[in-house]
Amino acid sequence: MRRYLETIKSEEAVRKILERIRPIEDEELIPTYRGNGRITTRPVAAKYSNPPFVCSAMDGYATTFEKTIEADVTRPVTLKKGSEAVRVNTGDAMPEGMNAVVIREEVEESERFIVIRRPLYLWQNIRMVGEDIIEGDMLVPTNHVMGIFDVSMLISAGVANIHVRRMPRILVIPTGKELIDIYEKQQGTRNQEKRLIDFNSHLLAEMAEETGFQATRHPIIADRKELRDVVNRSVNDYDVLLINAGSSAGDEDYTEDIISDLGALVFHGVSMMPGRPAIFGIVHDKPVFGIPGYPVSAAISFQTFIEPVYERLTTKRIQRRSVPCFTPYKIPSRIGMEEIIRVNLQQHHGRYYVFPLPRGASIFSSMARADGLMRIPENIEGYGEDEEIECLLLKDEADIANRVHIVGSHDLSLDIMRDLMKRAYPEADLLSTHTGSLSGILAVKKGVANLCTTHILDDQKNVYNIPVIEKYLPDREVALVHIAKRQQGLIIRKGNPKKIAGIEDLGREDVKFINRQFGSGTRILVDLLLKEKGVNKESIRGYEREESSHTAVGIAVRESVADAGVAIYAVAKIFSLDFIPLAEEEYDLVVAGEFTKDQRFARLMEIIRSDIFKKRLEEIGGYKTEHTGTVKYGKL
Amino acid sequence: MRRYLETIKSEEAVRKILERIRPIEDEELIPTYRGNGRITTRPVAAKYSNPPFVCSAMDGYATTFEKTIEADVTRPVTLKKGSEAVRVNTGDAMPEGMNAVVIREEVEESERFIVIRRPLYLWQNIRMVGEDIIEGDMLVPTNHVMGIFDVSMLISAGVANIHVRRMPRILVIPTGKELIDIYEKQQGTRNQEKRLIDFNSHLLAEMAEETGFQATRHPIIADRKELRDVVNRSVNDYDVLLINAGSSAGDEDYTEDIISDLGALVFHGVSMMPGRPAIFGIVHDKPVFGIPGYPVSAAISFQTFIEPVYERLTTKRIQRRSVPCFTPYKIPSRIGMEEIIRVNLQQHHGRYYVFPLPRGASIFSSMARADGLMRIPENIEGYGEDEEIECLLLKDEADIANRVHIVGSHDLSLDIMRDLMKRAYPEADLLSTHTGSLSGILAVKKGVANLCTTHILDDQKNVYNIPVIEKYLPDREVALVHIAKRQQGLIIRKGNPKKIAGIEDLGREDVKFINRQFGSGTRILVDLLLKEKGVNKESIRGYEREESSHTAVGIAVRESVADAGVAIYAVAKIFSLDFIPLAEEEYDLVVAGEFTKDQRFARLMEIIRSDIFKKRLEEIGGYKTEHTGTVKYGKL
Repeated sequence: MRRYLETIKSEEAVRKILERIRPIEDEELIPTYRGNGRITTRPVAAKYSNPPFVCSAMDGYATTFEKTIEADVTRPVTLKKGSEAVRVNTGDAMPEGMNAVVIREEVEESERFIVIRRPLYLWQNIRMVGEDIIEGDMLVPTNHVMGIFDVSMLISAGVANIHVRRMPRILVIPTGKELIDIYEKQQGTRNQEKRLIDFNSHLLAEMAEETGFQATRHPIIADRKELRDVVNRSVNDYDVLLINAGSSAGDEDYTEDIISDLGALVFHGVSMMPGRPAIFGIVHDKPVFGIPGYPVSAAISFQTFIEPVYERLTTKRIQRRSVPCFTPYKIPSRIGMEEIIRVNLQQHHGRYYVFPLPRGASIFSSMARADGLMRIPENIEGYGEDEEIECLLLKDEADIANRVHIVGSHDLSLDIMRDLMKRAYPEADLLSTHTGSLSGILAVKKGVANLCTTHILDDQKNVYNIPVIEKYLPDREVALVHIAKRQQGLIIRKGNPKKIAGIEDLGREDVKFINRQFGSGTRILVDLLLKEKGVNKESIRGYEREESSHTAVGIAVRESVADAGVAIYAVAKIFSLDFIPLAEEEYDLVVAGEFTKDQRFARLMEIIRSDIFKKRLEEIGGYKTEHTGTVKYGKL
Repeated sequence: MRRYLETIKSEEAVRKILERIRPIEDEELIPTYRGNGRITTRPVAAKYSNPPFVCSAMDGYATTFEKTIEADVTRPVTLKKGSEAVRVNTGDAMPEGMNAVVIREEVEESERFIVIRRPLYLWQNIRMVGEDIIEGDMLVPTNHVMGIFDVSMLISAGVANIHVRRMPRILVIPTGKELIDIYEKQQGTRNQEKRLIDFNSHLLAEMAEETGFQATRHPIIADRKELRDVVNRSVNDYDVLLINAGSSAGDEDYTEDIISDLGALVFHGVSMMPGRPAIFGIVHDKPVFGIPGYPVSAAISFQTFIEPVYERLTTKRIQRRSVPCFTPYKIPSRIGMEEIIRVNLQQHHGRYYVFPLPRGASIFSSMARADGLMRIPENIEGYGEDEEIECLLLKDEADIANRVHIVGSHDLSLDIMRDLMKRAYPEADLLSTHTGSLSGILAVKKGVANLCTTHILDDQKNVYNIPVIEKYLPDREVALVHIAKRQQGLIIRKGNPKKIAGIEDLGREDVKFINRQFGSGTRILVDLLLKEKGVNKESIRGYEREESSHTAVGIAVRESVADAGVAIYAVAKIFSLDFIPLAEEEYDLVVAGEFTKDQRFARLMEIIRSDIFKKRLEEIGGYKTEHTGTVKYGKL
């Protein structure tokens, strides 16, 4: 049994870390104008008052109010320019002995005199010394996080330089023989080297910089001795070391040993997913972390462990925004293990609902897609339907509100729609979740989605989509908008090495098939065609292996994971595969009645009906767009 | 009548500006890892799948699942290392022909063999090609604002460089003979030159950088011809020009003329305060702004006009956070003029209440102090009590929540408390609002403040503070904590040039007095002493001139605005003034009963009772701290 299997709770892990970290004591003197975001180490007092002398608050003439006491519309007072009235602009120091300013618009001027028809009062239109800031006043205290207005205020008070805490320095060390640096790598059209691009170290460095660290990426280290030397040396120059990965139980996972050897291991393993194999120890008084290798684990580990370290080192609190959300359905979780789940958020009737994204620690794209993170504590078995939970926000609420969300069937046209949408309306966006046609329709039925895409053939009526809507949404007001006709077919490797002639060959013993998920229109089509040709599903090798998009099927065939799959023509074209046409189907958009009046839907329709949309679809190939944008059912 | 008096509404001004601005079309190719915050100009597709090949998902042995089908606890399968079972780590490419991985912890190993006691299934512990990202898939669309997770996702998909929109460039041009640059200025102990430190250009440049501009500060220009040349030249290199100030009606306000001369003036003057004299025009297709000279006006003008310009130039939306708030009392405003008012926010019973700060456009420190900005539209005469309004947040809500707010009497000890509070609890803070003792007590009475400071003498009883509490807060549970005894006295210029001997000399014709505001403890003391000495208030020159803090009185005397004032000893010491002791008074803290259980109050008490607090008070001088921290009335 490896040590890291004796996990501790994440709260305990954070406590053990923070116990061992003290705020940075080094301070530096920097020009005030570079102070935004920095943290003061001393109270800062005003060097000068602002204004530092009595000055005019307006453009006009300085004079002495006593001379104007008798002024009146009928008995104006005339003052001699130079001696009795001195031209001043806003901010000019008051001439010695003068104590009021008359605004330029309120005097009559001649070359040598001004005429005043209203008495002035003492200090009229004058800014007193220290009206804004008084010399010696404390402007900001110790441990103040400087904002841009603080910077300007200090400059106005003559404070040219300030003492601030040195920024914390972090070193990110990528390790592993399997890694390759994207900028060193030969830029071929395919990744031939069978090495993985190191993106974790970029991720960790980016997260560190965004948090406020000065982050340095070390080149990839593949050698144990080198790693040991780098750690031993770097603890002198950095406040925090992150070794990534080397934190699980593999051959090359020597982080734990190196920490134990050079310093003291504090823990290895946290009962948290993702992030379980995290390591922490102290080498020469400096915190050294083993950050797990799966990128989502790396990101969650950073947020969980390194952000608190930053707060402790700097005394600056990191702003975290969270919102109350509800679960639209049951979200299970393993007891004894805390889970952090990436979610999309969708607002319905003023409430946010969470839609969990794939939980796999290797699926990093879902981190970029996620609107937020939800946490399931280790002592519960997940959440039931309609429970209130708190979600950490990763995106701005306005961005979520301005977005259309389309669930259902996957098609490349969704990416084109998204791109055109953001070109025309940069503040908008389109999020698509590939659940398959039927799940999309059920989501609309349940009211958790306003839009879904579908291509389900009714084999009795030989009609696409309308029968399934009539069946599942009989009492919902919906409309059906035609997106395009598209060619579905068998995709097989270039040159057809297995000599596959049609759907009937899928039953052959030497043919490996790759299927689509249950409820997808393509799966329904496959089943219909198999039935038609009298092929028994059980006889098909790979029938149970499911992918959830056309492109995933394409890549499986190109990579020889399978010999054949069913997908749209565009996929065959993109991946240079052979294509045997099976059906021309209708890919349509279902819209819930109440959403047809939404501005976001109006924009989406504008995109779908645009010439550029049709043009780009036709460029991909396999689409027919004669009726694109027409309403096939219901009304808008 | 000057042109700028013909003002337009701010909404119309923004409309006129945006009509004339197009998004930046230049794009640049940058390394993906530098992409955080940048905006894509093209859709970005995955170059490689992630993973790009079939690889192991765990550390263990790769094998073929078919060989393990018969494995069982009692009939283990033995596989030969090298040929039948190949050692793999997470991320290693799968050896040709192998299709499952057994985790290292689940095998028994010898030098040449591994033993398996459980059958594997096809693709077990294997990551398929494109499990995360599929080659060719659109990862981000056009006009996408890149986040740190997008950056890592693109790198994982082999995208080494991305096309992004060029950052918008802005030039800030400070103008005016009255200005001096803080970094060129002689660093004396006093500002002798009678020139104002230019901090607006730092302010505008900081705001521009924070918004997302590449900002450049031009050196200060004092000459009209030079300004004309700089504008004429710079419109070629920058997307936006800000001329500051030169936007009102003074001698040197030539921004309007230069714009009209080189291009076309669009407007001069907006019915908005602060920010009224704003100017906008187009020179060689580039927007040129005249930004008002008062710093608060400059900041509000930037937010109102330049932030929308940034959004238009880049297509990126600026995140603005606002919260619903309530007015604790009537807040008047001039009809026909939109007003933007700086406010502090205070939470009471789950609602935010707004407390307006001084409205003067020259009081910039209140911009740094403000938690938010409230807007009063031009078509109403302000808000009544308890009206709901929306406030733009300038500070984080958590910072507001963690803060203690003390209203009432001003004393230097408040700054020391604040500094010590933030040293001990960096996430905390102390906000003090100097309303004078009596207003502070009334704020506690009204329930809009939990803490106030006071030093009011009851001349009948000759007792400080307790009588006034008994009088104004008879039915409120409050406690009174002693902060310090302090010396009040007459402050006069060094050497006593007017030969002032005591309070009785304030009635002299040649003596100018500076008073404190009505309701302040010091004002009450002054009135008591005058009564005692039989001096008639009306005979005192300057009796009606009020300042709201001890230091403001100090500076008025030092700057010869007045000959005498009443303030604490510390002020005399700080400003090198002479001091004639008048009274030793008790400066105390009133705390509302319900707040005594608050953690923030516990922290405050800890600070007040600390040795370092007493030590620092005594260092300033004029304080006695024997009883500091004792409870004089009520209980904690």
